[in-house]
Amino acid sequence: MNHYIAISRRLRQTPFTAGVEAAGVKAYTVYNRMLLPAVFDTMEEDYRHLKTHVQVWDVAVERQVELNGPDATRLMQMLTPRDLSQIKADQCFYVPITDENGGMLNDPVALQLSDTRWWISIADSDLLFWIKGLAQGAGLDVAVFEPDVSPLAVQGPKAETLMARLFGEEVRKIGFFRYRRMAFGDTSFIVARSGYSRQGGFEIYVEDSAHGMPLWDALFEAGADLDVRAGCPNLIERIEGGLLSYGNDMTLENTPLECGLGKFMGKNADHDFVGRTALETEKTNGIARQIRPIAVSGAALAPARAPWPLFVGEQPVGQITSAVWSPDFQTNVAIGMVDAGHWDAGTQLHVKTPDGLRAATIQAQFWL
Amino acid sequence: MNHYIAISRRLRQTPFTAGVEAAGVKAYTVYNRMLLPAVFDTMEEDYRHLKTHVQVWDVAVERQVELNGPDATRLMQMLTPRDLSQIKADQCFYVPITDENGGMLNDPVALQLSDTRWWISIADSDLLFWIKGLAQGAGLDVAVFEPDVSPLAVQGPKAETLMARLFGEEVRKIGFFRYRRMAFGDTSFIVARSGYSRQGGFEIYVEDSAHGMPLWDALFEAGADLDVRAGCPNLIERIEGGLLSYGNDMTLENTPLECGLGKFMGKNADHDFVGRTALETEKTNGIARQIRPIAVSGAALAPARAPWPLFVGEQPVGQITSAVWSPDFQTNVAIGMVDAGHWDAGTQLHVKTPDGLRAATIQAQFWL
Repeated sequence: MNHYIAISRRLRQTPFTAGVEAAGVKAYTVYNRMLLPAVFDTMEEDYRHLKTHVQVWDVAVERQVELNGPDATRLMQMLTPRDLSQIKADQCFYVPITDENGGMLNDPVALQLSDTRWWISIADSDLLFWIKGLAQGAGLDVAVFEPDVSPLAVQGPKAETLMARLFGEEVRKIGFFRYRRMAFGDTSFIVARSGYSRQGGFEIYVEDSAHGMPLWDALFEAGADLDVRAGCPNLIERIEGGLLSYGNDMTLENTPLECGLGKFMGKNADHDFVGRTALETEKTNGIARQIRPIAVSGAALAPARAPWPLFVGEQPVGQITSAVWSPDFQTNVAIGMVDAGHWDAGTQLHVKTPDGLRAATIQAQFWL
Repeated sequence: MNHYIAISRRLRQTPFTAGVEAAGVKAYTVYNRMLLPAVFDTMEEDYRHLKTHVQVWDVAVERQVELNGPDATRLMQMLTPRDLSQIKADQCFYVPITDENGGMLNDPVALQLSDTRWWISIADSDLLFWIKGLAQGAGLDVAVFEPDVSPLAVQGPKAETLMARLFGEEVRKIGFFRYRRMAFGDTSFIVARSGYSRQGGFEIYVEDSAHGMPLWDALFEAGADLDVRAGCPNLIERIEGGLLSYGNDMTLENTPLECGLGKFMGKNADHDFVGRTALETEKTNGIARQIRPIAVSGAALAPARAPWPLFVGEQPVGQITSAVWSPDFQTNVAIGMVDAGHWDAGTQLHVKTPDGLRAATIQAQFWL
């Protein structure tokens, strides 16, 4: 990291920024025009601690989009190939969102709060604008806005222990990608077993920014003996675990099928959604490229700042979109988009990195 | 600036990033999910140089949205209160974009390239998503996408001299907020007399990223004796000059009337646009708050990172949204949103800054 960040109001602070800065955040990234912590100690120390103890993450950047009104569910179903009639009342539903060409606009998690009310917890794009535009253009009877709701994540092997101290033993009963409303002080929050790591944990949907720092402080107080620390999504851990990042590993140029999200499209979708024709055509014609785990040989590489092109000889066959050195697996771990015919496990390619050409091998699975 | 920026593909590089980094950029901000240089030498040195010589600015973050198809002009007119029938063939048209509540979605500049083709040069929000959604919802016959077009700005008192060396004397004939297509090597670019400073200059719309660095290098070669340097929009100069910043001085919570953009709404608009009803109601009922230049007393303050609340006694009456110390005017210059009844020039308020309470005075005009 060689450059400072110039912060202004436009890069929004969160309800937890005071806590994050008191904890000594060293680097930020920007996500949904909001500050997202990126490093506290070093990326490697943060990684080791996340895999061993418990961390509290300011993920308020997962901005919420609320759909509220008689047409909310109809609009929600227009947005995604996923069949929403299958959603359970307490379920966090991962919903790829596609444009008219089948391109990925976002890959958020949706919660149905009632027949007429949804929250969508978004990745890094102004999905609010797409949904507002669509509703306006189609003349739907629904309000679409960003409510004052900021997720705070508790992640790591000791996350459940810490959460039980704060919210009671009942928190242990929450299933994966399920949620419950739990009491906190004189209010209550939706608590979900979810989060952007493979170490287990929860996300708390903090309604009303004023509750942010009291919750932050309560978690640190309750977890002092667990070595609880401020943390953040960790680049090494998320690549090892195969957690895709919108804007890094997929963009509007990619379809859900290319991103390995075909399972979230009904085999014979009987609901209409934006992009359906394009995606059905792609299914028929075959998928041109797909996301794959890739190992890159040689010494430790600095994190990828821009795509690294993949080659077979002189022929371009895709690109690596996220890459970093893994201390635990002693290789450079990477995620890339690889052309058809070259994506089978074991395939040997070359990748052009800032440190020169390296051997790259398609993996059968992520480093789990 | 106390924090580093963690860069990944998600924070996109531009066609000029190689030049920017070779020139020694020290700090970035993020704008439209893309890297925008913020400081090269120091903010004060950059400011002095901008007001004296000529700078080349990577403003590729002004991403383009192209509307292309039979319904392009109809869609464009739906987006804005401004009457587009008044646009001249060579005009850069500043167009506030409003949602159904009259809230500002963006404040871009539009160019009409033909009857069926527009470019919109956007401020910091995914306006692409709003326009795509609206077109999709309304079933319009138009393609909406981000073309490979990246603006490069040449700003400062010597900008015209430098531009004439590269593009010929004809460049001097371009009027303010007008454009011409000018030859460069074996291609041509749209060149406009515009830019985000009050020092005069041009913006070059670079079509095809591959032309980016050759143009950058040609400008530095032609301007060596003019002390041409890499620069960027300068916080001090833009506040002095009253150049508003979307995301800082106005957000979706504000209307064009609050932002002093009423002049861009026809007195009796006879075209329909999204938000018309809300804005006509606001006009009838009166405007609740407006943007004002504000001087803040006392010693130099660090740039505002978040809004600073304004008070009369204990009563909140608005907020300062951008602020910094001005070396030329020897005061803290600021932009704020001030409630009705408190916005007249000369009004004395107080503002809560990170350095404590300061006197704040509404100015009659910006520091021009």
